[in-house]
Amino acid sequence: MSQKVYVGILGATGTVGQRFIALLENHPIFEIKAIGASARSAGKIYSECTERTWKMTTDIPENIKGMTIVPCEPEHFKGCRLIFSGLDASVAGEIETNFANAGYAVFSNAKNHRMNPLVPLLVPLCNTEHFDVIKYQQEKYGYKTGMIVTNANCASTGLVVVLKALQNAFGPINKVMVHTLQAISGAGYPGVASLDIIDNVVPFIGGEEEKVESEALKMLGTINQETHEFQHLTNMKISAHCNRVPVVDGHVTNLSIEFEKDAPSVEEVIKVLKEYTCEAQSLKCPSAPKECIIVKDSPDRPQPRLDRDRYGGMAVTVGRVRECPLFDIKLSLLIHNTILGAAGSSILNAEVAVAKGIF
Amino acid sequence: MSQKVYVGILGATGTVGQRFIALLENHPIFEIKAIGASARSAGKIYSECTERTWKMTTDIPENIKGMTIVPCEPEHFKGCRLIFSGLDASVAGEIETNFANAGYAVFSNAKNHRMNPLVPLLVPLCNTEHFDVIKYQQEKYGYKTGMIVTNANCASTGLVVVLKALQNAFGPINKVMVHTLQAISGAGYPGVASLDIIDNVVPFIGGEEEKVESEALKMLGTINQETHEFQHLTNMKISAHCNRVPVVDGHVTNLSIEFEKDAPSVEEVIKVLKEYTCEAQSLKCPSAPKECIIVKDSPDRPQPRLDRDRYGGMAVTVGRVRECPLFDIKLSLLIHNTILGAAGSSILNAEVAVAKGIF
Amino acid sequence: MSQKVYVGILGATGTVGQRFIALLENHPIFEIKAIGASARSAGKIYSECTERTWKMTTDIPENIKGMTIVPCEPEHFKGCRLIFSGLDASVAGEIETNFANAGYAVFSNAKNHRMNPLVPLLVPLCNTEHFDVIKYQQEKYGYKTGMIVTNANCASTGLVVVLKALQNAFGPINKVMVHTLQAISGAGYPGVASLDIIDNVVPFIGGEEEKVESEALKMLGTINQETHEFQHLTNMKISAHCNRVPVVDGHVTNLSIEFEKDAPSVEEVIKVLKEYTCEAQSLKCPSAPKECIIVKDSPDRPQPRLDRDRYGGMAVTVGRVRECPLFDIKLSLLIHNTILGAAGSSILNAEVAVAKGIF
Amino acid sequence: MSQKVYVGILGATGTVGQRFIALLENHPIFEIKAIGASARSAGKIYSECTERTWKMTTDIPENIKGMTIVPCEPEHFKGCRLIFSGLDASVAGEIETNFANAGYAVFSNAKNHRMNPLVPLLVPLCNTEHFDVIKYQQEKYGYKTGMIVTNANCASTGLVVVLKALQNAFGPINKVMVHTLQAISGAGYPGVASLDIIDNVVPFIGGEEEKVESEALKMLGTINQETHEFQHLTNMKISAHCNRVPVVDGHVTNLSIEFEKDAPSVEEVIKVLKEYTCEAQSLKCPSAPKECIIVKDSPDRPQPRLDRDRYGGMAVTVGRVRECPLFDIKLSLLIHNTILGAAGSSILNAEVAVAKGIF
Repeated sequence: MSQKVYVGILGATGTVGQRFIALLENHPIFEIKAIGASARSAGKIYSECTERTWKMTTDIPENIKGMTIVPCEPEHFKGCRLIFSGLDASVAGEIETNFANAGYAVFSNAKNHRMNPLVPLLVPLCNTEHFDVIKYQQEKYGYKTGMIVTNANCASTGLVVVLKALQNAFGPINKVMVHTLQAISGAGYPGVASLDIIDNVVPFIGGEEEKVESEALKMLGTINQETHEFQHLTNMKISAHCNRVPVVDGHVTNLSIEFEKDAPSVEEVIKVLKEYTCEAQSLKCPSAPKECIIVKDSPDRPQPRLDRDRYGGMAVTVGRVRECPLFDIKLSLLIHNTILGAAGSSILNAEVAVAKGIF
Repeated sequence: MSQKVYVGILGATGTVGQRFIALLENHPIFEIKAIGASARSAGKIYSECTERTWKMTTDIPENIKGMTIVPCEPEHFKGCRLIFSGLDASVAGEIETNFANAGYAVFSNAKNHRMNPLVPLLVPLCNTEHFDVIKYQQEKYGYKTGMIVTNANCASTGLVVVLKALQNAFGPINKVMVHTLQAISGAGYPGVASLDIIDNVVPFIGGEEEKVESEALKMLGTINQETHEFQHLTNMKISAHCNRVPVVDGHVTNLSIEFEKDAPSVEEVIKVLKEYTCEAQSLKCPSAPKECIIVKDSPDRPQPRLDRDRYGGMAVTVGRVRECPLFDIKLSLLIHNTILGAAGSSILNAEVAVAKGIF
Repeated sequence: MSQKVYVGILGATGTVGQRFIALLENHPIFEIKAIGASARSAGKIYSECTERTWKMTTDIPENIKGMTIVPCEPEHFKGCRLIFSGLDASVAGEIETNFANAGYAVFSNAKNHRMNPLVPLLVPLCNTEHFDVIKYQQEKYGYKTGMIVTNANCASTGLVVVLKALQNAFGPINKVMVHTLQAISGAGYPGVASLDIIDNVVPFIGGEEEKVESEALKMLGTINQETHEFQHLTNMKISAHCNRVPVVDGHVTNLSIEFEKDAPSVEEVIKVLKEYTCEAQSLKCPSAPKECIIVKDSPDRPQPRLDRDRYGGMAVTVGRVRECPLFDIKLSLLIHNTILGAAGSSILNAEVAVAKGIF
Repeated sequence: MSQKVYVGILGATGTVGQRFIALLENHPIFEIKAIGASARSAGKIYSECTERTWKMTTDIPENIKGMTIVPCEPEHFKGCRLIFSGLDASVAGEIETNFANAGYAVFSNAKNHRMNPLVPLLVPLCNTEHFDVIKYQQEKYGYKTGMIVTNANCASTGLVVVLKALQNAFGPINKVMVHTLQAISGAGYPGVASLDIIDNVVPFIGGEEEKVESEALKMLGTINQETHEFQHLTNMKISAHCNRVPVVDGHVTNLSIEFEKDAPSVEEVIKVLKEYTCEAQSLKCPSAPKECIIVKDSPDRPQPRLDRDRYGGMAVTVGRVRECPLFDIKLSLLIHNTILGAAGSSILNAEVAVAKGIF
């Protein structure tokens, strides 16, 4: 790959935009050529505009510091082939459509297009075969070279990787009880008020349980061969309890799972999870983790602070695989919600798209 | 009640012992007359011995400060009728038996005798009718005036109150999925290392899930009319996921519940929970909460920091009652784990025993 | 005091307003008769308006729940003699002046009038003799029965009590190095974003160091006998380093102090702090703490979580009194920033005013 | 440097030992050849022995996992030239002396030998010229090729770098008031109990203030040309207030500084700090940071979570340089206490020793 792919960032001053910029520093394939933000920021130098709001733990990359922020309009992104969108849901829908119409491949973190039956909802360790829908999307919306690809809500991301691995090996899963302990970074910045979460947990995250209960069914589903639209899984039922906890990064999810057929043993489950691989790995994408699913032996893992950064935050860590008195198997899993659960997924999805020649 | 009941505290220098001492300050019925601890502390003045280890947020009560700590042997507790035990499980079993043999009524926080089929495992808002077993316990062990009464593990305490209320109203419950977010104070002092829990959660508490899955079945069970032993509930199956979170006090539990018969509506469940009352209330025990179960309307409650201290930490707070896609009903509940979940339960159990004339 | 004094609350839906309402529940002298808030809330029932925003750890008092919120205009507060203002600084200045003009005694938490040379800046454990300025304030502004009384910034409150006690006993203090570790509740709600403070401290609070370096000089100063205005202390120099830490309530302050004359011994300092009393105590005001300054012997105190609630949050706790290699004495102190450091001070100031017959 | 230097780790299972192992993974100069621990662990395989106690956020390096732990005796470290000691102070003194006697160069984190007048107390960004004392140390103790080199207490480390830079530029410093906000990792594992620090700060760390007030004077001092022992700085007086805060890693220190001569301006101080370089940089040591001192412009920095990891945790970050009303200049600084403040310092000290040909 001698020539870099030029990319643009939408929402470059926000939390997700900052994460895109930090993760793309020294990226072997992608190079940022344009950074867009709201009218309030457009025209300003990036390092000046974000002097007090840059919240990454690494510095602003040298090549970005002096860039001038442009408005989030396609004409300002000429030369870019690919657009990573960290826009807020209040504006993302229309702007992303504009970019797709103008011929850009848009990889979005926003929820607006996620449930569109012609838009792939991708977790790169799980369902990159869903890129197949792109040609129908382009046909229907007249996008030509443009396209919209979304990634999942952070709380669904780890879940579907584990369910996919198990479903591949042991057949249909009927019931999934999901209990999350979600990090504050999932709510953006300023997000959760400290008075709401220090010495506290909040057993509620607005709209989150509904997303967990529905998004997974699309990601684990298939493309209908006649309508060419996504057909959600219908045999699986998910119930979610979502909680906010005082952790900076890293969502823990406890699962109880019931299979349609005979339950596998704990040892079989562990073996299948450890051996699970994904297309991003076989395509040798640079951000793909060495292992999709790390299975820990120690009984008190996974833990956010200790495990979230393994393989650059791009793997799912699983522990405590054991029998469930009510269903078949229970376990705990962890993902880094702002990397694999957000910007990192978008980037790896885009790497897969490049490797597959989708653009 | 013109005359106070004199009580002794075992394990008076530890966390649970300190909590007993703090909660019994100015108690209308009970008055501490003797405080026992290990040989290392015996003979010392209480305020000197605990100068650096007293961790309550109120001062050591004036009448306790100058007391001399005695060894945990019955002869040092003469004049006391009632013994509250905050002993560690490593020593509690034998010492408590000694006190029962010597004629004392022992109310224990330790787990040692909890599963003995002749020892009541009491949550005072749930199953004080289980005091009926005491006469059989005394008969079998030859205790005469002595007895052992235990209270439940903190993670089971709120659970059984809610299940009891629902079972009373809607009949047998088949399945209960339990997810806990437990406070650090549940592990005692020094307990959880700060490096293990700041910016972190631990999806594991040794032995806790087993207790939650079994203790409730005893508390919701009955006394067998022939053997006079406890008969555990057999129709109900419980599966627990227990997690430690960086909260000082207050365990949150998320439940999904399936009834044997037709599912009640959300409104019916709320009504039943709000109207639930217990024997400790009808006996007008001083530590009984005005409401057993507080049901919050706001969608983001209960929360540990805001709700744990209602009614002096002696009530269960419930919120988010809603339908469960997998079972019938899901909800979140909260208790103050070191008050209703520990020492407060022991004290209210003892108040009930006094009111019922059990000693 | 057979007849209660009727009071109104300005800014009743905000954090400080909520604290006023919680602290005044069952108050022996004051009874809330009117609650005011912004136009957005006016006309609404209090419990409905604050259903999701009430953040106190006790319930909304029964007599307040059903009250209708009124606009912050004097005509809606008829029958009230006293007004507690929890208004935001952006609007407090003018509204409070309106109420003083209309004849109300306004006790304000806002900073707007604090540095007015005719407005007393009162910490009730320190300088209630400054009420003497009220007659000149009324004269100058033509307030008749109206008046404005302010209380200090939370970070200055504990500081001046300790300095006052030491200055009384050992004469002028030349230098005070102040280092604060301030709780998040000092920033109001939503205030500090959790992403800024979990696993973090922020060595900066906008405008705070300037307040600490100047407010104390007014509070420890005197009323000029000719101009009848406050004359700030001129011999004392204060340097402040203010830090935000992840603590819910309770500001810790480390002090190094240099006296003008010979340095007292550590034992003399401890004795003077322990024996210090204030006018609010001698007037037997109901909110006055039993001890103004609690001196802890244990070397690791004061600590926010353990000490902030002593005497209802109305005392200063001091520990670690020792020699300073650079100045004379160093020590640590703690106050509850939202009680003694805010609404509690206002209430005790008002109790003193009633006891002194100021209105 | 074609040939790697073989090193051994003492105390390899503890927190500091783990940090050494993590930091030395893929080190360009040093390669771990032996790992020692207490008799309890000796003979065990490292990965098995630390399965539940490995607390780093990266995995155990592959080449270490299978190593057998040896006793901390010199004969088990043959082939190693250099020993990094993460031993506990209770045993470090004698063991380290044994290794020096046996001809090893010992780089220790323990406090035992720090104040020995012939042992250099080195912060690699500050005083590597103190290696000059080694020849006298070897002479006096008959060490031949052996030697003992120590690094400073974490709370002194950042302090001396800043003082050194300022002293070099502006001459002697008379007074330094130090206020620390120290992370929990500074206390090791299990270290600080979570009940002592969640929603809390502790204004006391046993023995810490004494270390801060004395260690800096040795590090900023010189080697006496006659006695060949360290001569501590005598003109500087330091007063320290040390506080523990709920931060995982990263000590913040607030300083007020008074110079003997005319005070430099804020701009001059900033310029000097930015331009400060150290010998480790000019020797091109691999762990030397690109900048010794990073000066942040944003008024709310440095912050532990955002700044501790810059340059791999090997730099000092400074912010808030401003005039002090009492002394000349005040500022805040931050270091990563377990990297530059501990194991990282030892490693960089050893890199300097190699580059200077000391062994």
